Amino acid sequence: MNPVNHLRTGLSVAEAQRVVLALAPQLGSETVATADALGRVLAEPVVSTRTLPPADNSAMDGYALRCADLAGATRETPVALRVAFEVPAGGSSPERALAPGEAARIFTGAPIPPGADAVVRQEDAEREGALVRMRGVPRPGENVRSAGEDVRKGELVLDCGAELGPAALGLLASLGRTVVAVRQRPRVAVVSGGDELVEPDTAPFDGKIVSSNSYTLSAQCRLAGAEPIYLGIARDTPDALEDRLRAGNRADLIVSSGGVSVGDRDYVRPVLEKLGCTLVFWGVQMKPGYPIVFGRFGDTGPLVFGLPGNPVSAMVTFEQFVRPVLRKMAGHRALFRPLVRATLAHDFEKSAGRMHFVRVFLEPKPDAAGEFVARSTGTQSSGVLRSMALAHGLLILPAAKTRLAAGERGLVQVLDEGFFAAHEPGF
Amino acid sequence: MNPVNHLRTGLSVAEAQRVVLALAPQLGSETVATADALGRVLAEPVVSTRTLPPADNSAMDGYALRCADLAGATRETPVALRVAFEVPAGGSSPERALAPGEAARIFTGAPIPPGADAVVRQEDAEREGALVRMRGVPRPGENVRSAGEDVRKGELVLDCGAELGPAALGLLASLGRTVVAVRQRPRVAVVSGGDELVEPDTAPFDGKIVSSNSYTLSAQCRLAGAEPIYLGIARDTPDALEDRLRAGNRADLIVSSGGVSVGDRDYVRPVLEKLGCTLVFWGVQMKPGYPIVFGRFGDTGPLVFGLPGNPVSAMVTFEQFVRPVLRKMAGHRALFRPLVRATLAHDFEKSAGRMHFVRVFLEPKPDAAGEFVARSTGTQSSGVLRSMALAHGLLILPAAKTRLAAGERGLVQVLDEGFFAAHEPGF
Repeated sequence: MNPVNHLRTGLSVAEAQRVVLALAPQLGSETVATADALGRVLAEPVVSTRTLPPADNSAMDGYALRCADLAGATRETPVALRVAFEVPAGGSSPERALAPGEAARIFTGAPIPPGADAVVRQEDAEREGALVRMRGVPRPGENVRSAGEDVRKGELVLDCGAELGPAALGLLASLGRTVVAVRQRPRVAVVSGGDELVEPDTAPFDGKIVSSNSYTLSAQCRLAGAEPIYLGIARDTPDALEDRLRAGNRADLIVSSGGVSVGDRDYVRPVLEKLGCTLVFWGVQMKPGYPIVFGRFGDTGPLVFGLPGNPVSAMVTFEQFVRPVLRKMAGHRALFRPLVRATLAHDFEKSAGRMHFVRVFLEPKPDAAGEFVARSTGTQSSGVLRSMALAHGLLILPAAKTRLAAGERGLVQVLDEGFFAAHEPGF
Repeated sequence: MNPVNHLRTGLSVAEAQRVVLALAPQLGSETVATADALGRVLAEPVVSTRTLPPADNSAMDGYALRCADLAGATRETPVALRVAFEVPAGGSSPERALAPGEAARIFTGAPIPPGADAVVRQEDAEREGALVRMRGVPRPGENVRSAGEDVRKGELVLDCGAELGPAALGLLASLGRTVVAVRQRPRVAVVSGGDELVEPDTAPFDGKIVSSNSYTLSAQCRLAGAEPIYLGIARDTPDALEDRLRAGNRADLIVSSGGVSVGDRDYVRPVLEKLGCTLVFWGVQMKPGYPIVFGRFGDTGPLVFGLPGNPVSAMVTFEQFVRPVLRKMAGHRALFRPLVRATLAHDFEKSAGRMHFVRVFLEPKPDAAGEFVARSTGTQSSGVLRSMALAHGLLILPAAKTRLAAGERGLVQVLDEGFFAAHEPGF
């Protein structure tokens, strides 16, 4: 008895992805310390209540002066000015305006005294007692940071949806914003299902295997910006499953793998339905990973993904469906893994009908900067986690194709987080 | 009095980077829970103490059988086998061997009974009471995962230096490794120097400005995989500076910005030397960011970077020197930011002598997949954090050049962590 026979089934990968994304809500906002907001998505427009810098100030340690006073100064015929006073950084406003023929000793960040219109760096000035000699004429405004150059009061500085990097956090701090509204991070309940599973601290016995999916899926959640809550292993009984699903019901999303997702155990559907879950589809035309269930608890309850139990199938289906959903929930705009075009190092063959995701190495193409060659990492069995651990990414073989030949180009979804880091500085 | 006049000074960016990397030690190892090791660098070779899977097992829910029994089975002339027993996943080994003419009901992960040589998926079988009919002949080994297919006992599974992603964590778990030796993460003491600075919870007054560098530099440390320890603002006095440097002495690296780094305040050098710091260089031929100090406390004490105080200068110099050092300390191999070649949207002009790092947007080049156009984000004043917050990266203008013209190509260091994420799934 197939428990899912009146659901949508056998969807293409693209259709299934559209369905899950259409049902994924964007989460509400929360207010966090700016110092803790790295990588979060801004949930408010940030309008400046300040002008930055608030006044014209010096970009250098040096001498503030009037350019007109230096008319005719050259290397050979320097002009001397009298150092009338000093403007320390972080002191009060300059005590007085600069008179003709005067210079003011000034430090980086200090306000420009009235009358001055440029700053000459100390390296370019010759100080001798109360005098300073200059051997050239600065441009008006040279080494002066103008009031409002960075931000004007009332201006929109950062908009909703911006991903907060280091510079944005510094900008918020400089506006006095020590807290900021950001999109909430999805909480994901992770359940592993199956009587065959043991936790990794138990040596496997009698056909048992270690439940590695809790490790892979929790880590994938973290990389997607979500918080995993691992609910442990659900035994293959209706009561155990119901108990675990209830424990996951306060999460934003439930990801189960194995047992729960598919097959003969026809208590899965009644348990999900008893708890109020509407199943949306079962089965996606892909390899690894056909048996995927997707559903939803009511209009506001968590989304539920039942992923296949094989370690690689669980990871690959997570990447295609769960990760983009989590990124959408957290307010990101670019939801998908980086894609690179790569030349195939050898033939790839498959049967028609399903889209294949093949674990590949990506190597730089000799003599072609920025281009790649894709090569299989070895056996593509969905049980072989090692060829997944080695892979830089997944080569996408379209459903209709039966062969891509060596030398053809294909699209690779890059999974390796460090893949784009450079081995050379570039200068 | 220049306090640094017998140091190396005026180094090129490349020279300065070589110097700091040559002095950066790789940190020792620590043992952490595998579940917490995401993104860390492996500090031990992992050799398997198990064979995975331990026995031949089924990749599918279906029927284990002997291929020879199905000889001649076709769509029109199916062959029926007797379902002799069931092998549940996670149960004990099969009760007995399969006799000719028999099939065993089997579930994913369950051990293949002796005598069977393939599994037919339940979708491809017709069950009728005690019989199951097949309309085709499987290949020997079909849907069977062989013992040792993933890992053989004694095999090197992951080597020192591997960056641990989700699949590697799952692989470790499946080997029973719940703890793992990884490279320690650098601790970085962050100090902001300057009498002009206030914390962001204080409204600026009398020429004071908010210390945003603690926010930007701490976030940059986190993105580099390091742990920032913010030591607050050091006032411009020898005692205040000494106090803060002592507080930072238990870190692996000290990053100061502003005040401490440069200039007229000639207590910087005596204080550093009093504390045992050897200064290595002062001043790098770059813009923004000339006034950089680099030193070291003894042979085993922390490295010290004195970065310029201007917000953008501090960030840009951190990226060129501190980040690669932190990544080397943590055991990474690819130390540098991603580089992309981009076509310039307009002319870029500069004076000769220093390497410039120009904040740019990177936009996809129309009609040229995977190529980019670089355009300035606006004013390049080193005080303007906003043009840094907007930037995808830094265009590198070589020291000797005075002009790069629109249409020429240049190298861009990509700083935006989400830059490579795709807006389309790729299928």
